[in-house]
Amino acid sequence: MIEELTWLKGSVASPDEEAARAAAERQATLIKPPGALGRLESLAVRLAAWQGTPKPSADRVRIVLFAGDHGVAEEGVSAFPQSVTASMVRQFAEGGAAVSVLARALGAELEVLDLGTAEDTGSVAGVRNLRLGPGTANFTREPAMTERQLAQALCAGRDAAERARSAGIQIFIGGEMGIGNTTAAAALASALLGEAPEALAGPGAGLGGEGVRRKAEVIRRALALHAPYLTDPLEALRRLGGFEIAALAGAFIACAQRGLPLLVDGFICTAAALAAERLRPGAAGWFLYAHASAEPGHARILAALDGKPLLDLGMRLGEGSGAAVAVPLLRLACALHAGMATFEEAGIAGKSS
Amino acid sequence: MIEELTWLKGSVASPDEEAARAAAERQATLIKPPGALGRLESLAVRLAAWQGTPKPSADRVRIVLFAGDHGVAEEGVSAFPQSVTASMVRQFAEGGAAVSVLARALGAELEVLDLGTAEDTGSVAGVRNLRLGPGTANFTREPAMTERQLAQALCAGRDAAERARSAGIQIFIGGEMGIGNTTAAAALASALLGEAPEALAGPGAGLGGEGVRRKAEVIRRALALHAPYLTDPLEALRRLGGFEIAALAGAFIACAQRGLPLLVDGFICTAAALAAERLRPGAAGWFLYAHASAEPGHARILAALDGKPLLDLGMRLGEGSGAAVAVPLLRLACALHAGMATFEEAGIAGKSS
Repeated sequence: MIEELTWLKGSVASPDEEAARAAAERQATLIKPPGALGRLESLAVRLAAWQGTPKPSADRVRIVLFAGDHGVAEEGVSAFPQSVTASMVRQFAEGGAAVSVLARALGAELEVLDLGTAEDTGSVAGVRNLRLGPGTANFTREPAMTERQLAQALCAGRDAAERARSAGIQIFIGGEMGIGNTTAAAALASALLGEAPEALAGPGAGLGGEGVRRKAEVIRRALALHAPYLTDPLEALRRLGGFEIAALAGAFIACAQRGLPLLVDGFICTAAALAAERLRPGAAGWFLYAHASAEPGHARILAALDGKPLLDLGMRLGEGSGAAVAVPLLRLACALHAGMATFEEAGIAGKSS
Repeated sequence: MIEELTWLKGSVASPDEEAARAAAERQATLIKPPGALGRLESLAVRLAAWQGTPKPSADRVRIVLFAGDHGVAEEGVSAFPQSVTASMVRQFAEGGAAVSVLARALGAELEVLDLGTAEDTGSVAGVRNLRLGPGTANFTREPAMTERQLAQALCAGRDAAERARSAGIQIFIGGEMGIGNTTAAAALASALLGEAPEALAGPGAGLGGEGVRRKAEVIRRALALHAPYLTDPLEALRRLGGFEIAALAGAFIACAQRGLPLLVDGFICTAAALAAERLRPGAAGWFLYAHASAEPGHARILAALDGKPLLDLGMRLGEGSGAAVAVPLLRLACALHAGMATFEEAGIAGKSS
């Protein structure tokens, strides 16, 4: 591991079990049958542990959007042309993208980072420009990233987590954009899980059956090329990942190290979460899984992380959109936890048998 | 049918298919792969049809809480004493109940109707007092309601829907409270579906295995007593339902007649929705199903209505709480639909293959 990545090994923060206990005790006194609010109860208790307070809050949310292009796009693995990545970066900043609309509706902050699109976005107001190159290399021929690019991408994620933590953010959401990135995420997950490419390659933004078969075949060639190196998760990430995927993994590890809980979005973010957990075991203790993506391979990656998604709405857009849609559940869980009366306050008899 | 119930046969409003078409066309132009927002897309299109506008909104939501006690409670079918119903009615008005907290958090209106609790709530600020009796009769011995009580309960629901419609409400939510009402709802659903009581009786607010068996046996006795009359859904509702269940059914039918879409909550509300659809076929065309309740029989009633719940969070509280938690999904669906840029506006190339 190159020197500037020693931070990856830094310890993960410990949730506050005292606060969790106090929150669980409070839940048991609220005027409802025990457990009747289902996952909203356990969400409140986990947030209490993460935030170190018996009455947690999910008011301050930041979505950090990492964008980057993928050399593997030249293998014909996406239904959209590569120029869409840069166009969408502009839209994130201009407010017309799904995640921009969601951020506004939720009162969440949105930070956009261009880590390297094929078409230079230039200087766009509201976009942090950290271009590591005009997209990654085609991983069917060579590693997607150089060691230097990988380190920079991971550090870009770490820095975003650090900024969020310093700003008092309570829930971190990572989003991504990059034509071809379901192929990179599927290849990475395939390597980390030891699963066949067919189990992880799906339609992405809209491939048909033939396209999905081509995508799996592209991944199979990449896995064969890089096979000797894939037992090391850092090498798997460098060779098969992408700028935005590495940045997400870096952000997720840094959130866990700083004690900032995060909502994991769909297929690509969950692949990055898996890489984060492999790079820094224990990091996943700070992850919540927002939704079950319609991308078929998502369930396998979630299972490896023992992740139970909050929502299942058939979404498959990325951009952090699924995670954003889950934010109200956290907020309502906190509101119920803090705002409901106790049996004692209400003068109500409890359960009799 | 007694004369004051002829309104039940009034025609159901027709969704605006023109608005739905315009909304679907707009969805197809938004900057995302077609279908990538999953159910949020179809929600926006259905709301467009219901509201008769290509850009619908779910800002104005009203939750109407119907409370009533159940004579069958004396058969030992609930884990809580009957006095809890009246206490909870006070809490709905005072703001300490789950649904009160949710209404505040969502900026939704909350209307509370006492249709007849065992313990008179007297005059509580914020509670509409329509007492039809000190709870229903024990349906293991006689019909739960007189014809007059049934008609009054149905009309109370209709009037609540009418008030909501006149006030410009966009989404109606019915909630309920009544110790013993999962037993009444299970008995009613059992009669309407022709299913065994064991398939519909569950733990409710917290019965153990022995309690659930007793509950099923109580329902079996009631079904045997009333058997000759249960093919008529109005008689099934009168004999096995409850004040709040009949009011919910009346409200749901009246919403459908007035073209006011509604979010159906959990087990009891879905049983009322089934009764509504049986009383006025076509009414269910205006229903959205908010969540899958942890009450085991809920899935069977949903299946009979072909209802696909939006959320599955293991909730089983009632009060309209599960429906309230689904409100942000509708609002975000509307925000995305109205706020996203089109491919043309963004100058982005569409899907290439």
